[in-house]
Amino acid sequence: MNSDNRGVVLVISGPSGSGKGTVVELLRGLYPNAGVSVSATSRQPREGEQEGVNYYYKTREEFEKLIEEGEVLEYTQYNGNYYGTLKSEARRITGEGKDLILEIEVDGGSQIKRIMGEEAATVMLIAPSAEEQERRLRGRGTETEEVIQGRLQRARAEIKEAVNYDYIVVNETGKAQECAEEILAIIMAEHRNNHRMMKYIREYFGE
Amino acid sequence: MNSDNRGVVLVISGPSGSGKGTVVELLRGLYPNAGVSVSATSRQPREGEQEGVNYYYKTREEFEKLIEEGEVLEYTQYNGNYYGTLKSEARRITGEGKDLILEIEVDGGSQIKRIMGEEAATVMLIAPSAEEQERRLRGRGTETEEVIQGRLQRARAEIKEAVNYDYIVVNETGKAQECAEEILAIIMAEHRNNHRMMKYIREYFGE
Repeated sequence: MNSDNRGVVLVISGPSGSGKGTVVELLRGLYPNAGVSVSATSRQPREGEQEGVNYYYKTREEFEKLIEEGEVLEYTQYNGNYYGTLKSEARRITGEGKDLILEIEVDGGSQIKRIMGEEAATVMLIAPSAEEQERRLRGRGTETEEVIQGRLQRARAEIKEAVNYDYIVVNETGKAQECAEEILAIIMAEHRNNHRMMKYIREYFGE
Repeated sequence: MNSDNRGVVLVISGPSGSGKGTVVELLRGLYPNAGVSVSATSRQPREGEQEGVNYYYKTREEFEKLIEEGEVLEYTQYNGNYYGTLKSEARRITGEGKDLILEIEVDGGSQIKRIMGEEAATVMLIAPSAEEQERRLRGRGTETEEVIQGRLQRARAEIKEAVNYDYIVVNETGKAQECAEEILAIIMAEHRNNHRMMKYIREYFGE
């Protein structure tokens, strides 16, 4: 995937039961040359960890300031610490011409579009039907009915977020591989998008 | 390529020297299930030809009226007769869920977008550089310098039309196959576009 200079930030999300984890794993297998981003965190560095290798280390205050300034593409809190992806890190990778695959929570898609603009393409993964999604959520078989109902409600609400996503990919049962290939096709197509190729056309005319 | 109901009208164009003919042929080989449209013409039916099989037969007046009404996606004149693709024919094919590949002249791309809207995706094929395009045009070696200069000028003007195309694909020398695969990826990605998938999401909620 050449010809334009910057990489694509390919954002993948999907509600519980969409099979997102499996599809992203398969996609990374299909596309081993995708860039890998180093996360930022507000937790203390551990023995032997290096800045910019394991994490970018920030104080809580620094991290919160970065969030406010729209410099954090997505983040989560865990054990009282922030973990997230910095815009600067995404741009470093795309600036090298590499594509970056980011797996995020459903509510983060429009945020990333706002921050990254046309440099990002967002993909929502969904189960083929509400019935199938329910079957998948129940399939684990270890949770109480109350927990399952909660998940179903949340998944239903999350699917409505699809309206804010650039692409919607259906993860048919037993076809996670095809699904990963579709997302790879989306990355390819994004590279050929008019807005990305205009730079190339200008160079064509030596402008 | 399932899940949404309508097919994509994939329009391919490119200036002389872009290698459009070869790429379209390879693409049809990669994608034999694409729909095939029957053209309309203002020439008389010949012995044994059938309406809707060989052509849709129109009088000159009918054809011109259809053009005026925006019912003709693209057309050309040859030997005093019109030949073209009707919007109704394209919609018949996409309505069956089949994709339609249309190879057209460069100046027709924005016209088709106007008529078909988001149902069409337009791809401009270009040579990797102005120098390579010139080399390809000269490569035939049978034309006078004047003819070549005329073609170069025209190609240069045509490439500027790229701004009106959805996608721009570079046909690197010796890589027509990769180029056809990129266009196939674009068709796939178009199917997963938000605006096409919204119908699916509505069905998901039984709306």
